[in-house]
Amino acid sequence: MSKKIGILTSGGDAPGMNSAISFLTKSALSLGFEPYLIFDGYSGIIARKILPAKNFPYNGISSFGGTAIGSSRFPEFKKEEVQNKAVEILSEIGISSLVVVGGDGTYNGGYKLHLKGIKVIALPGTIDNDIQFTDYTIGFDTALNTIVETIDKLRDTANSHRRCFVVEVMGRHCQDLALYSAMATGSEILITNTNILSPEEVSQKVLEQFAKGKPSVIVTITENILPNLKEFAAKIEELTKISTRSLEVGHTQRGGRPSAFDRILAAKMAMKAMELINQDKSGLAISYLDGKIQTFDIAKVVSNPVRKTNDLVLEINKINQN
Amino acid sequence: MSKKIGILTSGGDAPGMNSAISFLTKSALSLGFEPYLIFDGYSGIIARKILPAKNFPYNGISSFGGTAIGSSRFPEFKKEEVQNKAVEILSEIGISSLVVVGGDGTYNGGYKLHLKGIKVIALPGTIDNDIQFTDYTIGFDTALNTIVETIDKLRDTANSHRRCFVVEVMGRHCQDLALYSAMATGSEILITNTNILSPEEVSQKVLEQFAKGKPSVIVTITENILPNLKEFAAKIEELTKISTRSLEVGHTQRGGRPSAFDRILAAKMAMKAMELINQDKSGLAISYLDGKIQTFDIAKVVSNPVRKTNDLVLEINKINQN
Amino acid sequence: MSKKIGILTSGGDAPGMNSAISFLTKSALSLGFEPYLIFDGYSGIIARKILPAKNFPYNGISSFGGTAIGSSRFPEFKKEEVQNKAVEILSEIGISSLVVVGGDGTYNGGYKLHLKGIKVIALPGTIDNDIQFTDYTIGFDTALNTIVETIDKLRDTANSHRRCFVVEVMGRHCQDLALYSAMATGSEILITNTNILSPEEVSQKVLEQFAKGKPSVIVTITENILPNLKEFAAKIEELTKISTRSLEVGHTQRGGRPSAFDRILAAKMAMKAMELINQDKSGLAISYLDGKIQTFDIAKVVSNPVRKTNDLVLEINKINQN
Amino acid sequence: MSKKIGILTSGGDAPGMNSAISFLTKSALSLGFEPYLIFDGYSGIIARKILPAKNFPYNGISSFGGTAIGSSRFPEFKKEEVQNKAVEILSEIGISSLVVVGGDGTYNGGYKLHLKGIKVIALPGTIDNDIQFTDYTIGFDTALNTIVETIDKLRDTANSHRRCFVVEVMGRHCQDLALYSAMATGSEILITNTNILSPEEVSQKVLEQFAKGKPSVIVTITENILPNLKEFAAKIEELTKISTRSLEVGHTQRGGRPSAFDRILAAKMAMKAMELINQDKSGLAISYLDGKIQTFDIAKVVSNPVRKTNDLVLEINKINQN
Repeated sequence: MSKKIGILTSGGDAPGMNSAISFLTKSALSLGFEPYLIFDGYSGIIARKILPAKNFPYNGISSFGGTAIGSSRFPEFKKEEVQNKAVEILSEIGISSLVVVGGDGTYNGGYKLHLKGIKVIALPGTIDNDIQFTDYTIGFDTALNTIVETIDKLRDTANSHRRCFVVEVMGRHCQDLALYSAMATGSEILITNTNILSPEEVSQKVLEQFAKGKPSVIVTITENILPNLKEFAAKIEELTKISTRSLEVGHTQRGGRPSAFDRILAAKMAMKAMELINQDKSGLAISYLDGKIQTFDIAKVVSNPVRKTNDLVLEINKINQN
Repeated sequence: MSKKIGILTSGGDAPGMNSAISFLTKSALSLGFEPYLIFDGYSGIIARKILPAKNFPYNGISSFGGTAIGSSRFPEFKKEEVQNKAVEILSEIGISSLVVVGGDGTYNGGYKLHLKGIKVIALPGTIDNDIQFTDYTIGFDTALNTIVETIDKLRDTANSHRRCFVVEVMGRHCQDLALYSAMATGSEILITNTNILSPEEVSQKVLEQFAKGKPSVIVTITENILPNLKEFAAKIEELTKISTRSLEVGHTQRGGRPSAFDRILAAKMAMKAMELINQDKSGLAISYLDGKIQTFDIAKVVSNPVRKTNDLVLEINKINQN
Repeated sequence: MSKKIGILTSGGDAPGMNSAISFLTKSALSLGFEPYLIFDGYSGIIARKILPAKNFPYNGISSFGGTAIGSSRFPEFKKEEVQNKAVEILSEIGISSLVVVGGDGTYNGGYKLHLKGIKVIALPGTIDNDIQFTDYTIGFDTALNTIVETIDKLRDTANSHRRCFVVEVMGRHCQDLALYSAMATGSEILITNTNILSPEEVSQKVLEQFAKGKPSVIVTITENILPNLKEFAAKIEELTKISTRSLEVGHTQRGGRPSAFDRILAAKMAMKAMELINQDKSGLAISYLDGKIQTFDIAKVVSNPVRKTNDLVLEINKINQN
Repeated sequence: MSKKIGILTSGGDAPGMNSAISFLTKSALSLGFEPYLIFDGYSGIIARKILPAKNFPYNGISSFGGTAIGSSRFPEFKKEEVQNKAVEILSEIGISSLVVVGGDGTYNGGYKLHLKGIKVIALPGTIDNDIQFTDYTIGFDTALNTIVETIDKLRDTANSHRRCFVVEVMGRHCQDLALYSAMATGSEILITNTNILSPEEVSQKVLEQFAKGKPSVIVTITENILPNLKEFAAKIEELTKISTRSLEVGHTQRGGRPSAFDRILAAKMAMKAMELINQDKSGLAISYLDGKIQTFDIAKVVSNPVRKTNDLVLEINKINQN
């Protein structure tokens, strides 16, 4: 009898999750397994929202944003009795292995099931790129492209009017979305948790940039730094007398057609996950580190609260101000 | 000696202005005129920022957002002595005709110069579609596509998490961007100046939609209605217990590659403008009304403060709630 | 008992057909009708591939390309016995009204069913814009944007290498896709069925354009004119000694997310169709003419073989060569 | 006196070259160097098309496709007297260091100048990903996204009509564009130089896929394999009786807004190049290997004619046929 494998996405959705679902399903079928889709994350186990993948249009979904099998945050899953219930339901259906796609919370949930005997493999799916031991998470590249496209549009109108724009991007406590979008767009000023600037400091730099002949200035800033983005922009305008507007890129960063990179990353990770399941491995997280697909103990990944930091922030500020 | 024609863009920039500039230049050259580009709107006349178009890469700009010759708001131009100064400078250079691209303020400025003897033709360039006697303004279609693309992305993540999103779009006092983006995206609830709904009314409809089985609800709302978008969304969440987020599409609506429609509209209007200049006409605004390029007295256009209204708003609400 | 209404798409698929399906369904529900989806065009009636729309995710499809209910060419439908069979099956199910979306062939099929007593309303769905009495067909604007985006990309590389590109676009016997994409992209040479140029004539113009200082030249040409696109480009290169490449834009023109314009056009036409069905009308085609949604007898539309012609072709050639 | 550094792009253009130019310029200025732009590749040295970068809008170009400073193939540069002339002209101007961006031919030219005493650093700029010792070349990611977007559009129309499409992509003798686009799009059949299939073999697989219930089949194939793409598609149609069309993605792969990934890759490589120039290094090629920016001797890179091969091709075929 063929091995039954459950697939779920959990936590904040990320573009490329659908490619993961599609490629996990196809790789599972290719190895002779029987893949099942679990809807709405861990809560879907409890609610028995579980469907054989062959009844679902898994092939048509990889170009779509979001996750076709739904996601949810499910804090109840921290309770041991809920975890036990999940193990019970999965066993009942005969699902012995599980691939979970998501961020920190998803990894924690998966680790608990691994400890209780379910074979669990985890894939990093989050736009924030805030998972340890991987250079890229599924969704990060698409979100980055969305930010870059957004800032390019702002640049059009900023140049036409010789304006300053302050743009706030996501990333939770990771500065990668801000840092890399600043590299890609030439954003003149970059503020992250490792480079916090006061309105006075920003204003002085804005004035310097216009004095150098720049037709516009873009200030990029990570979320969770400013108490109020609009007031910050207003303060810059007051101090510089230069027309200054703000934009919170917001939840558009979570949607949209996944980029080629995210789909390929998801595909490679999905292939590795099925290879591990085929070898009866469990408790492992897939990563893309040093240009290679690798595996780490989920326990190690989740117990490393250290955020990625990047000493590029100051250097990019320096370079982009030329 | 060939006729010298000035071209300027003024007021808020709009995608497609570059196509207008490019096509005006090419059409002028085609008719044997000598086109000049005036930078940064009316203020550029006073600052003598005026360049023969043949020295400018006018052919390469039509796919770019913004306006390659800059724009500005220039309230000083309401003063008669500033207008006289402009006429003096234009006459000095030998520019007897002017094509201005912009919104209401631009039209008013052009009309003043027309009264003082400069031959003036005006083209409607604004994303807000808030100019009288034209069905479409240059920039409206691109902005609409930007909004639709943004809402499509929000829909991805909203569906994945069964969320409600409140989306605020531009349009000043015109509801066209909101109305038509709601038609294009299936936004379930549409709030405009002709259909203002309380948080309680919205909440009830949101609950009804989820009860009908919708996986997400999008509320689209025009700017200048809500005092605080985030608080509005928080109120909906409080009343419905459904996770509700908000997004202000913001200045991305002003940027980006102009759509085919906006470029073609700009091209057709530019051709008409040059035809009128060739006939020594002045004081006319170009419009696209009833499927045809037409002309109206600028005076008539600017003296009609009546905003376009549209009885479709209620009908679209009704239909999209199915 | 509520009226049952069948909806089908037929002939070549076009972006925006999904918006038509979605809005037809929602408008039907809004009026208290019972909409049914018929899969794979007229052949789906015979194959009884007919589903109540409420069982189909009609709300989630409007941002997708293609047609979610399939399409097909079904030449057998010209036979009267097949038409009779269709009427029989529709009557059996209780479907008394039908909305068909497609081009000429679709209109002809719909007209036959109308003559046999089914109430039929037709919507113009084709990228070619080759239907009489309408300024725009559903799908035309999206295809136009795809062409414009493609030519913009070619322009990037053409400019970098000072090359000439010959680009062939769709349109069957209608020159609108070629004409309007040339307006939008500044294509220097435009060849359509009303302006056929020899390789020698093209080569001379190409040389003139480079002599004027253009960094690249784009030749746009409608399909069904050249026997061999690559040989034509090779001939231009041979005659001009300028590196010349070709591209057939091909079936990408049929796919992709529908533009805002196409979705809104589809929505407005869908609303009108349901209004007519509510009035028990039949045998009518919806059009968007002179800026307004209008209706014409299907018989009149299909019996008018005259293709839209456009005297703009020569003028655009003249202007774009500046 | 500050060091003068020349920057040129050469060979086939690639998206992201503009980001390289922009970031090289800004990094050079940041280090106190004096950057010069050389137009149209190596031929521009001989033609003395050399401009101080500060006179060029280097900040505004990074979002544009192509290369803003032009490129060219310049076979004459293989002659030693032409190389000597180049060294003479560069020395005259005082340019002692050169950063060249391009493919194999560009690297060879740079190596010759290095041997003659100019300090040369090379960056890999080509969509084909066919340079040794780097996992990614600048332009590859954008071209890949263009292919994926194109195939997604074909999938829309293929699904609507239950068709087969054969798609030919670039890559010269490297199969990466084909392989990775097949991973990203779920292309059911992948033909590369390591997996050549006959029309009969393809036809059998196509039939199997439709028999499995797939609504469409995409065959992806690298260039330089088929003598005639259209005839190949016609043969598949003849053998399978399934409507089969073909598309050559063509030169659109070379154009378009560079992706975030390509811009960031270019930026990181540019920073490294300037660091090396600051250390008076020469004869080095920058690569992105194993997730890190690295350097290799240009001589070693160009003397390694071995193309990247990838044993993933068969595995992807197997997986995507599920």
